[in-house]
Amino acid sequence: MATKKPKLKVISLGGLHEIGKNMTVFEYNQDIVVVDCGLAFPEDDMLGIDLVIPDITYLKKNRDKIRGIVLTHGHEDHIGALPYVLKELNVPVFGTLLTIGLLENKLREHNLLDSTTRYVVVPGETIKLGQIQVEFIHTNHSIADSVAMAIHTPVGTVVHTGDFKIDYTPIDGEIINLHRFAELGQKGVLLLLSDSTNAERKGFTMSEKSVGAVFDRIFDETPKHRIMVATFSSNIHRIQQIINSAYRTKRKVAIIGRSMVNAVRTSMELGYLNVPANTLIDITEIKNYSDHQLVIITTGSQGETMSALSRIASNEHKQVVVKPGDKIIISASSIPGNEKSILRVINELIKKGADVVYGSMEDVHVSGHAREEELKLMLALTKPQFFMPVHGEYIHLMAHKKLAESMGIPKQNIFLMNIGDVLEVSKKEAKVVGTVPSGQLLVDGLGVGDVGNIVLRDRRHLSEDGLMVVVVAMDSSTGEIVSGPDIISRGFVYVRESENLMDGARRAVTRALDKEDGEGDWSHIKNVIRDALKDYVWQVTKRSPMILPIIMEV
Amino acid sequence: MATKKPKLKVISLGGLHEIGKNMTVFEYNQDIVVVDCGLAFPEDDMLGIDLVIPDITYLKKNRDKIRGIVLTHGHEDHIGALPYVLKELNVPVFGTLLTIGLLENKLREHNLLDSTTRYVVVPGETIKLGQIQVEFIHTNHSIADSVAMAIHTPVGTVVHTGDFKIDYTPIDGEIINLHRFAELGQKGVLLLLSDSTNAERKGFTMSEKSVGAVFDRIFDETPKHRIMVATFSSNIHRIQQIINSAYRTKRKVAIIGRSMVNAVRTSMELGYLNVPANTLIDITEIKNYSDHQLVIITTGSQGETMSALSRIASNEHKQVVVKPGDKIIISASSIPGNEKSILRVINELIKKGADVVYGSMEDVHVSGHAREEELKLMLALTKPQFFMPVHGEYIHLMAHKKLAESMGIPKQNIFLMNIGDVLEVSKKEAKVVGTVPSGQLLVDGLGVGDVGNIVLRDRRHLSEDGLMVVVVAMDSSTGEIVSGPDIISRGFVYVRESENLMDGARRAVTRALDKEDGEGDWSHIKNVIRDALKDYVWQVTKRSPMILPIIMEV
Repeated sequence: MATKKPKLKVISLGGLHEIGKNMTVFEYNQDIVVVDCGLAFPEDDMLGIDLVIPDITYLKKNRDKIRGIVLTHGHEDHIGALPYVLKELNVPVFGTLLTIGLLENKLREHNLLDSTTRYVVVPGETIKLGQIQVEFIHTNHSIADSVAMAIHTPVGTVVHTGDFKIDYTPIDGEIINLHRFAELGQKGVLLLLSDSTNAERKGFTMSEKSVGAVFDRIFDETPKHRIMVATFSSNIHRIQQIINSAYRTKRKVAIIGRSMVNAVRTSMELGYLNVPANTLIDITEIKNYSDHQLVIITTGSQGETMSALSRIASNEHKQVVVKPGDKIIISASSIPGNEKSILRVINELIKKGADVVYGSMEDVHVSGHAREEELKLMLALTKPQFFMPVHGEYIHLMAHKKLAESMGIPKQNIFLMNIGDVLEVSKKEAKVVGTVPSGQLLVDGLGVGDVGNIVLRDRRHLSEDGLMVVVVAMDSSTGEIVSGPDIISRGFVYVRESENLMDGARRAVTRALDKEDGEGDWSHIKNVIRDALKDYVWQVTKRSPMILPIIMEV
Repeated sequence: MATKKPKLKVISLGGLHEIGKNMTVFEYNQDIVVVDCGLAFPEDDMLGIDLVIPDITYLKKNRDKIRGIVLTHGHEDHIGALPYVLKELNVPVFGTLLTIGLLENKLREHNLLDSTTRYVVVPGETIKLGQIQVEFIHTNHSIADSVAMAIHTPVGTVVHTGDFKIDYTPIDGEIINLHRFAELGQKGVLLLLSDSTNAERKGFTMSEKSVGAVFDRIFDETPKHRIMVATFSSNIHRIQQIINSAYRTKRKVAIIGRSMVNAVRTSMELGYLNVPANTLIDITEIKNYSDHQLVIITTGSQGETMSALSRIASNEHKQVVVKPGDKIIISASSIPGNEKSILRVINELIKKGADVVYGSMEDVHVSGHAREEELKLMLALTKPQFFMPVHGEYIHLMAHKKLAESMGIPKQNIFLMNIGDVLEVSKKEAKVVGTVPSGQLLVDGLGVGDVGNIVLRDRRHLSEDGLMVVVVAMDSSTGEIVSGPDIISRGFVYVRESENLMDGARRAVTRALDKEDGEGDWSHIKNVIRDALKDYVWQVTKRSPMILPIIMEV
């Protein structure tokens, strides 16, 4: 009797219906390969949360099968969860030189450098992970050394683009390896997973080089003043172009912001950033130069509170004080949710006399993600039998699905999946056959997953209306009140100016307790206190602080 | 001896360096006239705050001088603080018919209708308020019945534009009264206060009518499906155009969302909305019609959690369930800070099969505020001696200042002021001579101003890391612990899964108390508890919950 041939399973543990925490599992027989292991930034209602990582219950259950985690590039949403995941799963990690370099900075902070096996691969290389072979293919993106992957399995080849764009004039001279995608397409691609971030945008994303031309022009038009540029620290090619413009106009470059300093150092060490001699100076040296001899590259393009640019804007930066005429370029677009913070920083900078270039004023930023026409090219070259749009919210996945349909891929061959869905693929067929545990773990300080819905609900409640603690000491034998009720509030009203209110609250609780016959148990008495106080406070203030009745037994 | 001739004082109590709470005081001798009395929406860090109103300390001190509050139009940022201010200052209010109509809805909710004197004025009318005469001038804006004001004083005429745009094809047929602005400019305008909201945008704001043409096209292209349009409830002209498109395509119109229902009712009663007979239906009647016979107009264009559209998106609306093919038009731009909420709603709607039109996909929204070219026209017509840009953040005020400079207004005649600054104007001179108290009052429930920085700081702290309450009962004579320490936490960790942590916390507090000799006073003991717990918790979790030590004397 012939045994059934195993099928390939494809499971996203993140990155579908969301921007962030990208992670995809490829499982064939006894082998699992994981592509990327990213974090997501917390939503507005996740109060106090530092970051969000994927639920890896499924991987923990199948830890013996995991042959490795392969990385497409060094952005947080692709490598940021690794320090947490590696503590649970000590498996080897594979990535290109810069990706591994950036990862090592993280591992060092988490004391994981010694315990983690890292392999550096070069684009074009293929590695064997059990019955699965992973081929790394050079792409273009807003960070150097990005790759797509061809995942060769016994049932066929899967292409996972990672994040990509098609840049015909990239800064490092290396166009995305279109030939290899074409070749793979010619041989037959079973399944394509492709980046959907910009799928609802028409046309083509501009080349990174177009930004450099704008920098050159702005630098030329600013002969007398200091120039500052804020951008993402991981955008090495952008930083290269700022340095190029600076060198051309005989300016020195100072780097500020912890992540920017780290990224520049790592990129220089690994050869991804080409800085002419005597160009970089320490920020403490800027006082030795005239304004027209200086460029400062900084973090803070998203208006992040603790970033260098925010601190400069609010006059809290030790070395850099804004002066009238400073030309400040925000070389980034605003990530949804950050608009107000960015506007706040810009207002402060303008108020101090700076000339700020941002948003649509000049073309000082381009995206790292493919738009419609590029996505169509990828679909045309790879000619996949099955298609799964990844990386994006519903709106993006759906737009990508419609693009694929418009190019003739049959509806039933396109899989708009949810995280945890198991897509089973054979040579002729693909279908969703079930689900595995999936979701999100919230990281707060050292705690991973110990803050859940109940804690968040309490934080939201506390943040809205504060709390009132009512303490009563009771004789444990007679049930009589021997002290209290005392009421303490925080985040509710300014108590010194609300004495009447607090007196009234105390009286309301006392009145309610007086009505009791001392027969009820303590949880009953707590409810009496809670109800009495809640009613009183709502009536007087129309607010609902959290109420914590505490009974001390003495 | 000749007495000094009085000068005109101009004081903004809101609306400078911010969007919202517009309020400007004009004071001449013994008379004060206040233009507008708006609210602002809370910033992200104002946790639990419902709305923000101007500090009117200065007006309360000068209450006998106030002749009235004159209103430019019925938007929240121009009339929203009135219910709060009128409780403090019972002065007459003047406005056009729709503005007063919308205000009356508010006064009714606050039980202020009987005690408030309202006067309805018509554009072109001039009212005498002491030595100050206020002339109302018809303008165009995103709400009907908007006016600018010419404030005639013994030292000269001040023009305050209110919010405006220049619409050559307005829905109500009435172009902004350019002739009157020209006439005033010819006679001499001493000071112009002009709307800066769109001052950094080039060109001209499109006519409201351009949106109607897009509605017509979309309605024609949607012959089979239901159409829903979300917009601002106050945008009566937008609603009129939706109704026009509906009537033309033989669709019935149902209105949902409390503020939308109120606005439509008030506008119809006052004649600002022209609805053909048998066009409006109640939302409960939609089941009697086919999809292609229906248009639903709704609130929720900003993704507000409790709005009708949000509830529809999350399947929580009683009468409206989204079905595949529904055409949903978001006829609004996103107010900064709301982007993520809107995106969330759109994702949910698309997921349910709706076809959503939003953002830059189609021209389904135009602004109500003048851009560069319109602002220049206003400056050119009024030819003011002095100029004060109003309504906007620094970035907008500064852009408007530069526009005025580019048109030849001398730098020293342009006043980029702060709220509370007193601009003193005579026939020949204007200068800032001092400041008056100004600022913001936070409204939370029934409380006005009882939530300040301390309460907000506590709410932020509680929202980040929650709290731990430590209760100890002590013998009041011996100082010995008779019960406790008991620790209760909220918003910190999920206690049931963190027993070790809570045990450790209890032990840390006990250890610290054991070291004490019982000599210290209670505030010392509280500090001992706080420090011990803080250190322990930080070490184990890297979090800093609020710690509330409570000592019960028994």
